[in-house]
Amino acid sequence: MIRKISGGVTAAKGFKAACCAAGIKYQGRTDMAMLFSETPCAVAGTFTSNRVKAAPVIWDRDIVESGCPVQAVVVNAGIANAATGKAGLDLCKATAEHTAKVLGIPASAVLLGSTGVIGPNIPLDRISAGVTAMAGTLSDTREAGTAASKAIMTTDTVNKEFAVAFDLPAADGNGTVQVRLGGMSKGSGMIHPNMCTMLGYITTDCAISRDLLVKALRGVVPDTFNMITVDGDTSTNDTLLLLASGLAGNRQISEEDESYSLFREALFSVCRDLAVLMASDGEGATHLLEMRVFHADTKENARTLARSVVGSSLVKAMVYGRDANCGRILCALGYAGPDFDPAVIELTLRGEKESVCFYKDGRVQDFDEEKAAAILAEKEVRFSCDMKMGEAEATAWGCDLTHDYVTINGDYRS
Amino acid sequence: MIRKISGGVTAAKGFKAACCAAGIKYQGRTDMAMLFSETPCAVAGTFTSNRVKAAPVIWDRDIVESGCPVQAVVVNAGIANAATGKAGLDLCKATAEHTAKVLGIPASAVLLGSTGVIGPNIPLDRISAGVTAMAGTLSDTREAGTAASKAIMTTDTVNKEFAVAFDLPAADGNGTVQVRLGGMSKGSGMIHPNMCTMLGYITTDCAISRDLLVKALRGVVPDTFNMITVDGDTSTNDTLLLLASGLAGNRQISEEDESYSLFREALFSVCRDLAVLMASDGEGATHLLEMRVFHADTKENARTLARSVVGSSLVKAMVYGRDANCGRILCALGYAGPDFDPAVIELTLRGEKESVCFYKDGRVQDFDEEKAAAILAEKEVRFSCDMKMGEAEATAWGCDLTHDYVTINGDYRS
Repeated sequence: MIRKISGGVTAAKGFKAACCAAGIKYQGRTDMAMLFSETPCAVAGTFTSNRVKAAPVIWDRDIVESGCPVQAVVVNAGIANAATGKAGLDLCKATAEHTAKVLGIPASAVLLGSTGVIGPNIPLDRISAGVTAMAGTLSDTREAGTAASKAIMTTDTVNKEFAVAFDLPAADGNGTVQVRLGGMSKGSGMIHPNMCTMLGYITTDCAISRDLLVKALRGVVPDTFNMITVDGDTSTNDTLLLLASGLAGNRQISEEDESYSLFREALFSVCRDLAVLMASDGEGATHLLEMRVFHADTKENARTLARSVVGSSLVKAMVYGRDANCGRILCALGYAGPDFDPAVIELTLRGEKESVCFYKDGRVQDFDEEKAAAILAEKEVRFSCDMKMGEAEATAWGCDLTHDYVTINGDYRS
Repeated sequence: MIRKISGGVTAAKGFKAACCAAGIKYQGRTDMAMLFSETPCAVAGTFTSNRVKAAPVIWDRDIVESGCPVQAVVVNAGIANAATGKAGLDLCKATAEHTAKVLGIPASAVLLGSTGVIGPNIPLDRISAGVTAMAGTLSDTREAGTAASKAIMTTDTVNKEFAVAFDLPAADGNGTVQVRLGGMSKGSGMIHPNMCTMLGYITTDCAISRDLLVKALRGVVPDTFNMITVDGDTSTNDTLLLLASGLAGNRQISEEDESYSLFREALFSVCRDLAVLMASDGEGATHLLEMRVFHADTKENARTLARSVVGSSLVKAMVYGRDANCGRILCALGYAGPDFDPAVIELTLRGEKESVCFYKDGRVQDFDEEKAAAILAEKEVRFSCDMKMGEAEATAWGCDLTHDYVTINGDYRS
């Protein structure tokens, strides 16, 4: 029913993208991106739970909470515009006003995003010149969307975009129409689940009420973006936005019916795939790390247990070293918080073709070390734990802790 | 009033120590230690909060909670006796019974401790042979205490012991007598504050009621051992024991008077110094990292904020790289949980001689990068944050995140 299609933020009808090299911090690469919709869009968003919020987070949250439609998003990489006081907020206002002027829309329809170093100020002249340049090159091609997803990268090694299509009843009652939903995100360091994590922009041409757009986004974030961690550090800038142009021609979704379920499923799949891409591209990562907890007593406990394992420095270093030191996984489950019985749980390493049971009946098993080493050599390392308590389950994603992580973060500013 | 003296667990009257090379996992080094007191001792202890508890933790907790006096502690390094099921508990019982037999004391007076790899079983024959050998070489010399502190090391690079002396009113009413309190601890990886963290053994010859011994230990742990972190992983084996022989000849402390305050202060100083030594010897560490939070609204919030900073991978990597990327400290305060106003707090880097204010008035300051770099080159890197809310304060200690940490933990078992 839900089909993967090529592209990202320009996959859905009505969305254009552009990017440019504004020279804000990086040289010799694009560092600004713009999204634009001729049609005013309903918008839903989630933002960092960090007490220290970057200026663009404060700007966006006010607009998203107002319920007013939006038409543009302007993002820069290199400087985070965080811990910049009044100057940072003034810059947001000036950027939005300039964007509004060149695009012929209200300033309240302009959302902003920044990522990079905390502290420095962004030069307004460069941001403004970038906005003017991008307004003249907006395009609805797949290539424009991809270029935008590259312009917002910082320590990311790959750009992240993903899109799906699905069919919904047509507005005119004649059969079905194709609806698209696609997005891009960036994030590699300072990644830890709390609300959303990172910058993420998702567009859809689905006609859907704002209330349900918000509900759908809030519903999928806890099991997607909030289930990844790279380093346990929740950023000051985390922003996830979902814009709906309504141009697909479907009968508007205004209740929690089958169409809503399909839309939510599509949104879940885009959010999950972007989230897993981010975990897999964690700073310095050589492995994706997945932990699935099932038969837990509650959903929240399943999430907490799974996140504790992918967040453990010792588990992460063990995956890097391809060392089946499974006591560390057990240890990370044990200090996560939720109660469970160590005498009954079962812990398994799951490879592409084979599995190894590490721990059951209250003790570490005599497992085949060679088989375990072969599975740990796979690019994606998956563990699962049967808690034998109930019916809840959750999956968390992270990456290994490597020498490169230390190198990257020992000298990020320069 | 409180004087640092040389030695560790044998500094207090009545305590003997021994160690041996039992070949449990390591070769060519000592790996077992024993403490012994002819006089039955009152004992207080705190243990890991991990749901997965090692067998010796379960054994010790039962004895400590029973309130019965103890006389011996037997510790091994190399294998943790955790996740070993019934076999692990049986081993504890057999070890205690053998120790009781060779020392001529009840098995219920024998405490146990293990540290090392989770999963494997400890060979009973080697443990028993080690116990027999150590029972014949017990000594109350300073050297015996130091040798014991070396025998319990795993990835530690230095042994950790510390002792103090202070004066209390004599039991016979004639002036004062000298009371001693000393301890040893080990811990370098899988170190994160929750209850105590690591193995720690403290002895004193102070005459003090068991209730006040327990109260004093519980009182000092939250601001000492629970304020350090190396990697955020709370071990399955954490154990801190405090044994009091009562042989100093002081008038027994049985109420919270001046003598109790002095004893508590001495205990605090030994616990803090052992804790800071552990943080400073964190796996792969090249710097001690200290974060002091003051003028916080509550003690618990001050602790949470300080621990968040020393636990942040990005802050730890920044200290390793000697990069004054202070936005990361602000970020770690922001996601810690407690509420505060980012517009008023002040963040400072404190060197031996000079200080640099990084952040105030809601924004990162233009600070002297060269001066900051010089301070960050010091062995002990100290930050402080004035929350401007109230009168509470707390200090947390950690270490930097280095290439060696990844190397050590990518291949710990082999």
